[in-house]
Amino acid sequence: MDFDAMFDAQLDALKEEGNYRIFAELERQCGQFPRARSHDDDAPDQVTVWCSNDYLGMGQHPVVRQAMKDAVDACGTGAGGTRNISGTAHHHLVLERELADLHGKQAALLFTSGYVSNWAALSTLGSRLPDAVILSDALNHASMIEGIRHSRAQKVIWRHNDPEDLDRKLSALPANAPKIVAFESVYSMDGDISPMAEIVEVAEKHGAMTYLDEVHAVGLYGPRGGGVSEDLGLADRITLIEGTLGKAYGCMGGYVTGSASLCDFIRSFASGFIFTTALPPAVAAAATASIRHLKVSQSERRQQRAQVAQLRAKLDARGIPHMDNPSHIIPVMIKDPVKCRMLADILMHDWGIYVQPINYPTVPKGTERLRFTPGPLHSDADIDHLVAALTTLWKQCALAHAVA
Amino acid sequence: MDFDAMFDAQLDALKEEGNYRIFAELERQCGQFPRARSHDDDAPDQVTVWCSNDYLGMGQHPVVRQAMKDAVDACGTGAGGTRNISGTAHHHLVLERELADLHGKQAALLFTSGYVSNWAALSTLGSRLPDAVILSDALNHASMIEGIRHSRAQKVIWRHNDPEDLDRKLSALPANAPKIVAFESVYSMDGDISPMAEIVEVAEKHGAMTYLDEVHAVGLYGPRGGGVSEDLGLADRITLIEGTLGKAYGCMGGYVTGSASLCDFIRSFASGFIFTTALPPAVAAAATASIRHLKVSQSERRQQRAQVAQLRAKLDARGIPHMDNPSHIIPVMIKDPVKCRMLADILMHDWGIYVQPINYPTVPKGTERLRFTPGPLHSDADIDHLVAALTTLWKQCALAHAVA
Ligand SMILES: Cc1ncc(COP(=O)(O)O)c(C=O)c1O
Ligand SMILES: Cc1ncc(COP(=O)(O)O)c(C=O)c1O
Repeated sequence: MDFDAMFDAQLDALKEEGNYRIFAELERQCGQFPRARSHDDDAPDQVTVWCSNDYLGMGQHPVVRQAMKDAVDACGTGAGGTRNISGTAHHHLVLERELADLHGKQAALLFTSGYVSNWAALSTLGSRLPDAVILSDALNHASMIEGIRHSRAQKVIWRHNDPEDLDRKLSALPANAPKIVAFESVYSMDGDISPMAEIVEVAEKHGAMTYLDEVHAVGLYGPRGGGVSEDLGLADRITLIEGTLGKAYGCMGGYVTGSASLCDFIRSFASGFIFTTALPPAVAAAATASIRHLKVSQSERRQQRAQVAQLRAKLDARGIPHMDNPSHIIPVMIKDPVKCRMLADILMHDWGIYVQPINYPTVPKGTERLRFTPGPLHSDADIDHLVAALTTLWKQCALAHAVA
Repeated sequence: MDFDAMFDAQLDALKEEGNYRIFAELERQCGQFPRARSHDDDAPDQVTVWCSNDYLGMGQHPVVRQAMKDAVDACGTGAGGTRNISGTAHHHLVLERELADLHGKQAALLFTSGYVSNWAALSTLGSRLPDAVILSDALNHASMIEGIRHSRAQKVIWRHNDPEDLDRKLSALPANAPKIVAFESVYSMDGDISPMAEIVEVAEKHGAMTYLDEVHAVGLYGPRGGGVSEDLGLADRITLIEGTLGKAYGCMGGYVTGSASLCDFIRSFASGFIFTTALPPAVAAAATASIRHLKVSQSERRQQRAQVAQLRAKLDARGIPHMDNPSHIIPVMIKDPVKCRMLADILMHDWGIYVQPINYPTVPKGTERLRFTPGPLHSDADIDHLVAALTTLWKQCALAHAVA
């Protein structure tokens, strides 16, 4: 059987619809973020990264780097085992305590990634709570969707950010079924923020547990970086808060926080937690340093907000449409995968501006976009350069200037 | 609804059957592997780790550590994005080329862990190849089982390491259905090695693709560490070889290797690859250094084999039963979760020997065991100490001395 031919046929279909992905090959330059060396032949040697999820540049922070290097020298490069079989390092437990404190919870549980934490936690809850029903916001992340799918629990999708629809859907379910309301705080592709207070209220009314993904908010929102739930003082009313160490904290890994029983339950039953090598202690040490720094330092968050506001204002001044939202994410809608890639290519090659075209399956077809994530390390000159580039392109391409 | 009470009830059941897990809190000491500092109150300060999957101690190798630290200083602590959105570093591509070369394949694809590589690759193949049937060895690892389950493809389980049973099961399937034969080389809990030549032969006869997990073999078998498939000269007849960077290579991460089309297919369609932050470039750099070292150096593998043989011989001399197998893994069967934990506790507290009791769900109930993994860094004195401890315990506990 010619398997390669079967693979190629599906890849050809992707290429035809313009959704075949080409990864930019970069080398970020420590101390010079957001600058990176490009290894792509037809790009300038040095480019400015405008789409990183290392939102605050913590990946180059001297304290974070030093913590990682010190732990490499103290304990080595890997954990050497699963958490159960020789892989639990002191550093993991220190980090778990730090995370529990960050969200004001009794306990936390570390995973190898945010993807795995969502997938493993939701699949375990959904499969091990008899007759559980998971109520999932329509725009939840792939890692939650796959976790729910894997659990084979009943799944009910409610309209994105619509607590009234959630209320209706909860009302239609049997009173005694365990219900899990799964949603995010900051949605990464549109940059909108969920009406958390209303959602929590509805969930409480129905005795449902709340499962909140704060992946794009931790480190960025709340006085200590505890996310939108900290900012709104709602953390103690959320049953489980999930987050990542790979975005604003600049490292890698994921976690859930909640009651001691909840975390122990997932620790004890989640295949994706049990059967995998633990995070390197050095990565845990770096993440701990990053979280501790952002618990007290406001300057990175403040400067990020200033640069986000500045880019928005300058785009407005030039009439370049961008999605309105209250977050740090600035999507510029293109609505066509081929055009989206073309614009990104020109930005990269002619202007040294790297922004990845966002296409299906990351966003629905027809909503392709450029997604900018200004951070504290983008200078005013960087912003001016980006706006000049976009202005030129907008004129050349005669794209619609209407608000997306 | 009292969710905590529901969690506690299931945890209590685990505790009652003796399967509740307590993780040892360690700090491995670089330069002194297999020694680790213990943070557990009732254990000695320093213990000898006898159950690490950092099989060769590469996690403390100066070259591997230096590569990690250099990359931290060059590029920072994290990747900053998914592979598609700003997260592909030059270091990832260098590592992927190294891995393709290791297994003599056209291409390789990196994942955040071996667990994710199995889960993502099998769920993608099983769900996207129309009418695919996955033939899974009965003792395959959880990550493969979950990937197959997630794919919702038809699954056929064949008897462990039994090519004749595989042949029968393949014969019963429609000739034109795409078939995937999934198996491992070294099975981690029994330490047995699959009859690879026979399995490949059977698969080829039926036009099935072969999916081989070499997680417990890469770095350890074959003249360049390419695993059992390299050792037997069978790599070019295996469609997909999967491995980890978290065990013999001493780091973290997983991968698949195969044809360019196969890797591009998984790259383009696997949710678990697409929607997650990439491995830190520094971890990729460390893994690359480790693989390169073990491609040319035989001394670690040679010394590991010597110590494995020595432990086996000394256990035999004392009449301590251990499972016979051709690998580096020495299971001593206890067959009871409570006794297994008790023995491990005594070894830890009285002898400073850390070996984790292996219980359900890692092994089937009734097959609980202590699993020893001697490495090149265990001295002869370490081995004598372990054998003395076990001899004493065996006498005290009057456990059956019959061969398990
Ligand atoms: C909302 C959301 N949740 C979870 C994840 C996964 O987190 P990680 O990158 O740590 O795997 C992502 C993105 O990667 C995400 O956007
Ligand atoms: C056979 C097998 N495959 C895959 C894995 C997962 O690899 P990783 O630890 O890199 O997630 C393991 C163990 O963890 C394993 O034993």
